[in-house]
Amino acid sequence: MKLPLGAVRGAIRRGDYRSHTAGLGAGYLQTNIAILPQAFALDFMRYCQRNPKPCPLVGVSDTGNPMMTTLGRDIDIRTDVPAYNVYIDGKLDRSVTDITDLWTDDMVAFALGCSFTFERALAEAGVPVWHVEHDTTVPMFRSNIDTVPAGPFSGKMVVSMRAVDPAHADKAAEISRRFPLAHGAPVHRGDPAGLGIADATRPDWGDPAPIGPGQVPMFWACGVTPQVAIEAARAPICITHKPGHMLITDIPEDAEVPVLAPVS
Amino acid sequence: MKLPLGAVRGAIRRGDYRSHTAGLGAGYLQTNIAILPQAFALDFMRYCQRNPKPCPLVGVSDTGNPMMTTLGRDIDIRTDVPAYNVYIDGKLDRSVTDITDLWTDDMVAFALGCSFTFERALAEAGVPVWHVEHDTTVPMFRSNIDTVPAGPFSGKMVVSMRAVDPAHADKAAEISRRFPLAHGAPVHRGDPAGLGIADATRPDWGDPAPIGPGQVPMFWACGVTPQVAIEAARAPICITHKPGHMLITDIPEDAEVPVLAPVS
Repeated sequence: MKLPLGAVRGAIRRGDYRSHTAGLGAGYLQTNIAILPQAFALDFMRYCQRNPKPCPLVGVSDTGNPMMTTLGRDIDIRTDVPAYNVYIDGKLDRSVTDITDLWTDDMVAFALGCSFTFERALAEAGVPVWHVEHDTTVPMFRSNIDTVPAGPFSGKMVVSMRAVDPAHADKAAEISRRFPLAHGAPVHRGDPAGLGIADATRPDWGDPAPIGPGQVPMFWACGVTPQVAIEAARAPICITHKPGHMLITDIPEDAEVPVLAPVS
Repeated sequence: MKLPLGAVRGAIRRGDYRSHTAGLGAGYLQTNIAILPQAFALDFMRYCQRNPKPCPLVGVSDTGNPMMTTLGRDIDIRTDVPAYNVYIDGKLDRSVTDITDLWTDDMVAFALGCSFTFERALAEAGVPVWHVEHDTTVPMFRSNIDTVPAGPFSGKMVVSMRAVDPAHADKAAEISRRFPLAHGAPVHRGDPAGLGIADATRPDWGDPAPIGPGQVPMFWACGVTPQVAIEAARAPICITHKPGHMLITDIPEDAEVPVLAPVS
């Protein structure tokens, strides 16, 4: 399905498009979303600042204001994500396609960069990635790396795995390092056991992807990490995007900073 | 004065070294400091997130904890900056060399990247900068660029000026862009009037520096910007570093992220 960006956004807002956003809005930054009561917002923001590779913060709403003003001219976080997960007391309660009835005056919405950005750059550089070519979800694993805690937010870093040919490994690392707002350089390459991963064919999230003969598995910090930390924090309510169902912003992927130039 | 880093830090902590830190701790990230009551912390952090070029956030303390644990093994923000400015209700009240008696349980300390990092990189690349060679303070100007407000924090962007030969202008821009945690690429080059600066020989802060014949004035977002925003916010108390008197961290200047690897 190849729709113009405006049409996709209208369909998402109306609730007519409820699927994942991979490959949509090409050239624009897509983001993970976490929405929390203000009482948790300062600690969550500290958690993101201290863990910038899994949690690259690219936008924060004013308290109670659902418009993500620095990320787009007209982005309403209550309607403009194709699907949301609602956590109650740290546990996944349900998935919905609109959170207008859940948004309250004390909520703060956070947008975090995601891996779609560097995956596009890898593809353009001729580094094939199996899960993209096979239209599956990247395999993700709970690693043995501790994140830096902040208040009630803590936990192990979740990593995503992409296996590449040895000739492509350095290039993949170098390209992704150029995107600090999209998880940056890999956190590990080679033996999955180095991250405490016993079986690389059985991911904790996403779909399995093969490590081809001679290929090097490479691991990047993953945007599921904050969801694990949010579960640990047991906020009375937290709303996230449904994995893969991202917010499409107005920020070009190659922007130096993820802030819309003000209208003059 | 060329002392080893450990000796400099000891002297700063004891109050024996009270001067500026330019050229000290070469290779380690130095930072601007702002300390605010927790009631202002979330809005200030949003202000930094929305204005990452003037306010590149590199570290945030836990509320009430004076140890900057992600920036060093033993950094106590109450003693480890050579000199501090104390603002009361948004007005500069006094300068001190130790804030142990002012620190309270509800304070949050913020560290922001500074221009020393890219100035070193410019020097290494053979791009001379007048104020560095003449040991003066960089000229700074209030520009006509509005920052993106957050809560009570708002104001014009302060910019610093460095004049370079035309042959060096692109290189200077490209080098500084590599340091997003040190203000990144210039915000303007050429005619100072483009930023609303009427007289480039009369800076609002710092010392005058000449624009040599044929040279191109280049302007970078400046770490004095948050001080202007802090004055606008009129917090009952705010403590900053005294300009030029930075915190020297344990973070290498070329680190991918400004977070100390945890001790394992």
